[in-house]
Amino acid sequence: MTPTIDHDRLLARLKELGEIGRDDQGKLSRVALEDAEKQGRDLLVSWLNEAGLELVVDRIGNVFGKWSVGETDAAPIMIGSHIDTVRNAGIYDGCYGVIAGLEVIDAIKLAGVMPKRPIVVGAFTNEEGARYAPDMMGSLVYAGGLSLDAALNTVGTDGSVLGEELRRIGYAGLIEPGFVVPHAYLELHIEQGPVLEREGIQIGAVENLQGISWQRVTVEGKANHAGTTPMAMRCDAGQVAARVIIAVKDFAQDAEPGGVATVGTIAFEPNVINVIPSKAVFTVDLRHPSDNALHKAERALEGELTALAAEFGATIKIERLTRFEPVAFDAHLCQIIEEAALERQLTARRMTSGAGHDAQMIARICPSAMIFVPSRDGISHNPREHTEPDELFAGADVLLDVVQRIADISHKTA
Amino acid sequence: MTPTIDHDRLLARLKELGEIGRDDQGKLSRVALEDAEKQGRDLLVSWLNEAGLELVVDRIGNVFGKWSVGETDAAPIMIGSHIDTVRNAGIYDGCYGVIAGLEVIDAIKLAGVMPKRPIVVGAFTNEEGARYAPDMMGSLVYAGGLSLDAALNTVGTDGSVLGEELRRIGYAGLIEPGFVVPHAYLELHIEQGPVLEREGIQIGAVENLQGISWQRVTVEGKANHAGTTPMAMRCDAGQVAARVIIAVKDFAQDAEPGGVATVGTIAFEPNVINVIPSKAVFTVDLRHPSDNALHKAERALEGELTALAAEFGATIKIERLTRFEPVAFDAHLCQIIEEAALERQLTARRMTSGAGHDAQMIARICPSAMIFVPSRDGISHNPREHTEPDELFAGADVLLDVVQRIADISHKTA
Repeated sequence: MTPTIDHDRLLARLKELGEIGRDDQGKLSRVALEDAEKQGRDLLVSWLNEAGLELVVDRIGNVFGKWSVGETDAAPIMIGSHIDTVRNAGIYDGCYGVIAGLEVIDAIKLAGVMPKRPIVVGAFTNEEGARYAPDMMGSLVYAGGLSLDAALNTVGTDGSVLGEELRRIGYAGLIEPGFVVPHAYLELHIEQGPVLEREGIQIGAVENLQGISWQRVTVEGKANHAGTTPMAMRCDAGQVAARVIIAVKDFAQDAEPGGVATVGTIAFEPNVINVIPSKAVFTVDLRHPSDNALHKAERALEGELTALAAEFGATIKIERLTRFEPVAFDAHLCQIIEEAALERQLTARRMTSGAGHDAQMIARICPSAMIFVPSRDGISHNPREHTEPDELFAGADVLLDVVQRIADISHKTA
Repeated sequence: MTPTIDHDRLLARLKELGEIGRDDQGKLSRVALEDAEKQGRDLLVSWLNEAGLELVVDRIGNVFGKWSVGETDAAPIMIGSHIDTVRNAGIYDGCYGVIAGLEVIDAIKLAGVMPKRPIVVGAFTNEEGARYAPDMMGSLVYAGGLSLDAALNTVGTDGSVLGEELRRIGYAGLIEPGFVVPHAYLELHIEQGPVLEREGIQIGAVENLQGISWQRVTVEGKANHAGTTPMAMRCDAGQVAARVIIAVKDFAQDAEPGGVATVGTIAFEPNVINVIPSKAVFTVDLRHPSDNALHKAERALEGELTALAAEFGATIKIERLTRFEPVAFDAHLCQIIEEAALERQLTARRMTSGAGHDAQMIARICPSAMIFVPSRDGISHNPREHTEPDELFAGADVLLDVVQRIADISHKTA
């Protein structure tokens, strides 16, 4: 019998989990280690039990359901994502990957076929970082990129300590994070961007994840009366900021296509209608899948600021806030994803993830890749986050097929 | 004997008045009709009495000292400005014109010459508008541009009612505002801008006052993830705002030189580093001495916004906040000012006032003009407001000479 995803249950479970953490106004907030997230974890655990999986909770609170498939000590295939949310969230981000992973295992089990490797589905702690920094913490600790002690001692935005909260909700496990190094890691996720929807493509084979460079720029000009200061005698910090906003949109694409640049925040001082801005503070978010191109974008920004400082007689300061190198996913896994999609008569494309995901952390320890499905209007972290059921089903079907290939399951012999 | 300004007393009085209204930290705030401003008025009245002038307080609280020069019923020459300040002010703005006006009368009286017209020095109520809107209120009521009742019923930022405050501090006079229409009005003022200082010129003969056009622009784009949204798929309200900021600086000068344009305030929404701005709200301050050119600048702004809305697929709304037509001062008075400066071996130029002054209101009822002296760094409304003593003296000397010419005082026959 060919394994088949239970589409109806996939959707029903997404909706059921999506009801946990709603407030009086119906807003969904299932923030890491809060009471609502404990309820979400409990529901997930009940499903893992129902599927007959071995429950493993590690010391950072990552929750795994493991299908051991007999006595083999082969490295498992891991499928994962997260079930914590931002505040006022949608129901798909993270949860889709965890529930689909569980459905994949259930489908294979129900079909009576035996994979050559164990299959594990996992939900990582605190992917969103809405309460504790950094985000993607559970997978980062799992991959050895952050010490367990540092993570457990993290103080949240509400003053709580992460390790104490884990104990309080009953998810401080005993197993060391990283207890098993997977053979491969797969994460199915909504795109959180508009590319697939705009291009009418059903499956994204995510081949890499952008490097991120965040900086804060402070321009010091000179405040003067907006009526009495001729244009030629001004040192207007707002004009400098506007020039950077215009220029920066090309920097991330000048070296190689595929980059993005965003000025998301700005503040003028004194911010008065009839006073020339003496100060403009704004942020620049640069991203590129190529580290070389990201470096070039950073240098282009610095060069532009130097030129503008000279042109305007302004003082310009730049502070690096964050820098993550790009992550390349496993090329072979990406190829399998594309092939699996095409065999299902689904349209597919290689693509870059612009957002961070647990997969980027697990990619440190094993071959990893992601499967994206379309997000309506590219919206996520918002109640309007939406993916059509058929698109959700297609993604889960592809995940099922990819897992079977990696697990050496041949339908013909099953 | 030739009338001569008492320079030392001019400076001493500026400093004495400048000490009234200082707080514990030494900050000067002599805001209209507050206790400190009552003390400032009392000091001015004591000086008017000392000079032997007739005290006139009108119903809006404007304070005048009148030298009647015998039985003539000729229209008087009026010299005026204001003694109220913004919060955390300098000592020159307004006070210089009032005190210099008093010194001019004193100088002429002391010289024993008799002008052919009365000379009046006045301090208008609430020029700054720091507590009650609109600013330049006392002169506006005097000129008939605002009804006395409306002015007296004005509720301040602190909930106080202007008419009650006038009574409380003892400056609710009985005379109707506008009780006399001057033959000419002169106002001596610091420039509050950088032009004279930058050009090394001592005297500005102010020939006009810019028209002002304030608008608020709201750009509605689309918030999306800064990492996952390709540049070509964005509707970034911040990019639109930046384009306007760049473009607008030319609009005020395109039609005719002499205009200025300023974007002094801006806000992005959601104003998050990794979210493309869905909304940008900013103000545009356009000024020009020519009403035609100001209209052209407004139309250029509207045209730019229409083009950007189409280019970006954004929704753009523009709201007019304020519109004042330009004021032309009396050309003959300006010529007399220039001539007087040159006769004193002072450098002079015709210029435009970018700031509002009582003179623009009084210009509605009689020939008016202003004399400007340099402001260090163009700064005013600030403790760093400064004009060198020699520059203050030069301005007062020119005011004295202009008054004598208009009053038909011939030194040769004196």
